[in-house]
Amino acid sequence: MSEEFLKVARAAREAAAELAPLPRAPKDRALRAVADALVASAAEIIEANAKDVEQARAQGTAEAMIDRLRLDEGRIAAIAEAVRQVADLPDPVGEVVRGGTLPNGLELRQLRVPLGVIGIIYEGRPNVTVDAAALCLKSGNAVLLRGSSSAYSSNTALVRIMQEALAATDVPAGAVQLVPGLTRDSVKELMRARGLVDVLIPRGGASLINSVVEESTVPVIETGVGNCHVYVDAEADVDLAVEILVNAKAQRPSVCNAAETFLVHAGVADRFVPKALAALREAGVTVHGDERIAGHGDGVVPVTEDDYLAEYLSLDIAAAVVDSLEDAVAHIRRYGSGHTDAIVTRSQQAARRFVSLVDSAAVAVNASTRFTDGGEFGFGAEIGISTQKLHARGPMGLPELTSTKWVYTGEGHLRTSGGTVIAGSAR
Amino acid sequence: MSEEFLKVARAAREAAAELAPLPRAPKDRALRAVADALVASAAEIIEANAKDVEQARAQGTAEAMIDRLRLDEGRIAAIAEAVRQVADLPDPVGEVVRGGTLPNGLELRQLRVPLGVIGIIYEGRPNVTVDAAALCLKSGNAVLLRGSSSAYSSNTALVRIMQEALAATDVPAGAVQLVPGLTRDSVKELMRARGLVDVLIPRGGASLINSVVEESTVPVIETGVGNCHVYVDAEADVDLAVEILVNAKAQRPSVCNAAETFLVHAGVADRFVPKALAALREAGVTVHGDERIAGHGDGVVPVTEDDYLAEYLSLDIAAAVVDSLEDAVAHIRRYGSGHTDAIVTRSQQAARRFVSLVDSAAVAVNASTRFTDGGEFGFGAEIGISTQKLHARGPMGLPELTSTKWVYTGEGHLRTSGGTVIAGSAR
Repeated sequence: MSEEFLKVARAAREAAAELAPLPRAPKDRALRAVADALVASAAEIIEANAKDVEQARAQGTAEAMIDRLRLDEGRIAAIAEAVRQVADLPDPVGEVVRGGTLPNGLELRQLRVPLGVIGIIYEGRPNVTVDAAALCLKSGNAVLLRGSSSAYSSNTALVRIMQEALAATDVPAGAVQLVPGLTRDSVKELMRARGLVDVLIPRGGASLINSVVEESTVPVIETGVGNCHVYVDAEADVDLAVEILVNAKAQRPSVCNAAETFLVHAGVADRFVPKALAALREAGVTVHGDERIAGHGDGVVPVTEDDYLAEYLSLDIAAAVVDSLEDAVAHIRRYGSGHTDAIVTRSQQAARRFVSLVDSAAVAVNASTRFTDGGEFGFGAEIGISTQKLHARGPMGLPELTSTKWVYTGEGHLRTSGGTVIAGSAR
Repeated sequence: MSEEFLKVARAAREAAAELAPLPRAPKDRALRAVADALVASAAEIIEANAKDVEQARAQGTAEAMIDRLRLDEGRIAAIAEAVRQVADLPDPVGEVVRGGTLPNGLELRQLRVPLGVIGIIYEGRPNVTVDAAALCLKSGNAVLLRGSSSAYSSNTALVRIMQEALAATDVPAGAVQLVPGLTRDSVKELMRARGLVDVLIPRGGASLINSVVEESTVPVIETGVGNCHVYVDAEADVDLAVEILVNAKAQRPSVCNAAETFLVHAGVADRFVPKALAALREAGVTVHGDERIAGHGDGVVPVTEDDYLAEYLSLDIAAAVVDSLEDAVAHIRRYGSGHTDAIVTRSQQAARRFVSLVDSAAVAVNASTRFTDGGEFGFGAEIGISTQKLHARGPMGLPELTSTKWVYTGEGHLRTSGGTVIAGSAR
């Protein structure tokens, strides 16, 4: 590992030990100081951001991508406001998750504690730099940020401003660190930093996430790849199903909780598919369907195995007719990413069976897949959506950035083969 | 991957999908059928076990190890009884962990669901084969068992008997699988079976656990390495501290929650160390101490860095005098394994500070480290003690063998930029 990387990782580790026992008030004060500093340093941030924008333009980056990268006073104010909102959220640390007095008199509590050092690898806009840092600090964790190289100048400025603001507070400035360097090597270092980093959260496309999962020796929380399905059951209200499908696909196609495939029960295909094709066409969506879908209208592109596997993130959708709810579930198990899958049905029994059989982070019944979201779930903030089963599944808020610690308190409790004995009781 | 391995892994995966939605009653019936079959097949198990014992003897295995391996009617009855006790435990699956109605009317529930397929790599006695299978089945999971090659014949018989018993129940027989083969290759296959296996739990020594953590692409729960500390504070009751220390070290030295180092505050060393050395000597314990410990009595072996790092699992203990509670915490952070660390003190403030600063799965106050145990904590069963921070930390019972799933139910809920709209409301 490079000296440069070790320096920031060790600084984060030291800061984490100092930050972990802090109660809520000093953490909230520090977050508000960060928010104020971001607003006060807007000119500096915009100047640093301009370099990233200029470089992106020189590299021929698409204008839509450049717009995502760009920061202005309004966006900086919004970023600062988001930090203040995190300060307003309850502190997960110290919560007694379980507890009681054991039969032998030991007082047992399971307390929520910070994870330690969280590494975040992300491709997103520079606002993620601040969002992620705020959520980690609030939950008592230090953070190692490895953002996109296309936003390196912006991220460097944002992290320096956050560190300077923290320096005047009780939260150690070292708790927010940007991983140095622009190359893939710095991602590798983060993935091999077992013992220095407690968890890695990759946020981005499937290839980033897969490479982290494959290569990391640090425990990983997989996020965000969403190949979401809408299954229209034999007993669906057809008009309702069309509206849910169009909303799930087209309301915001670029996000992970957008639908990428719809499956329709053969018993309702005659009534549903023509209406769905018309509504999707009107919403600008291209349907990649099997033969039974194509039989119901024009303009259906033949579907391939790759379409079923695809997270399009565009105005495309795969489609197939299935002969049973079980076939729909089998399709979802085979091709899905375990993010969100929806059923539209009037049947209580079908809903119950679908919920029971689909093995995904979220299952929606008569609702759009778009609701799988920390904000919609009322978490107040979201660090990502986990599609794995360990530790956290689905939208991750502040509690998902913590671990727990068992504490037991006695008065000289000793364990013997005959049961508990209290020390000194024989004295 | 070998065809042999893929065959059992796929069988487990299919069984897992069938097992997951089962309610409690058929799972409990299946566990009781397994318990009955083990008792009824005792002769067959003892015969298979005799081959393992014979082989161990031929290889010159120590008699104590052979005794751990040996099964007789009494031990088989105890194994069966443990399975019945698992059947009596509440089913974690289906528990609503969180839930409520969102402001937009969506009904949101977070349900406990099985993890899927759990791989267990263990070095222990053949009873682990049955214990682990029972806990996995009860929590709705299929299990891939990879036991010690020294118990292969016993494990093969136990798994076959369990499968035969399950075949007459609603739990699919394929839900319990022994990983074929005796070589290290079969461990490797298990570690690379991402997508087929949802989580790997290695149970055994530090070298097994480290190699699994390093090489596995399947998410791992680390268990059981315990370099536990007892810190005797300046304000400790010296006699109480001696009793707790001797209990933590000597009551059962071979287990992970036994103490391996004691640290004593300089302010109490004069009074504590001579008594501790005498009591430890009487219990047959060799003390590996620093110079300040050695100054208080005879027979102290000079301590090395390796002693501070060691999980002795024997009647040895490392020891040092520290100048402050913070120095004790720094020692524990540096050398500890994050299992259990204890403080003995009369001071509320010292206890609070130690609990806050020590970053371990369990912190004991005025109690022996030996209480960190699923049975003692009232879990009814334990699959291991996690020393990692993700997913599970400390003793793992049935809920730790589960994940969760979010379910939200609406009546045509659509997400729009202006908030939730109900489908059909404009019709």
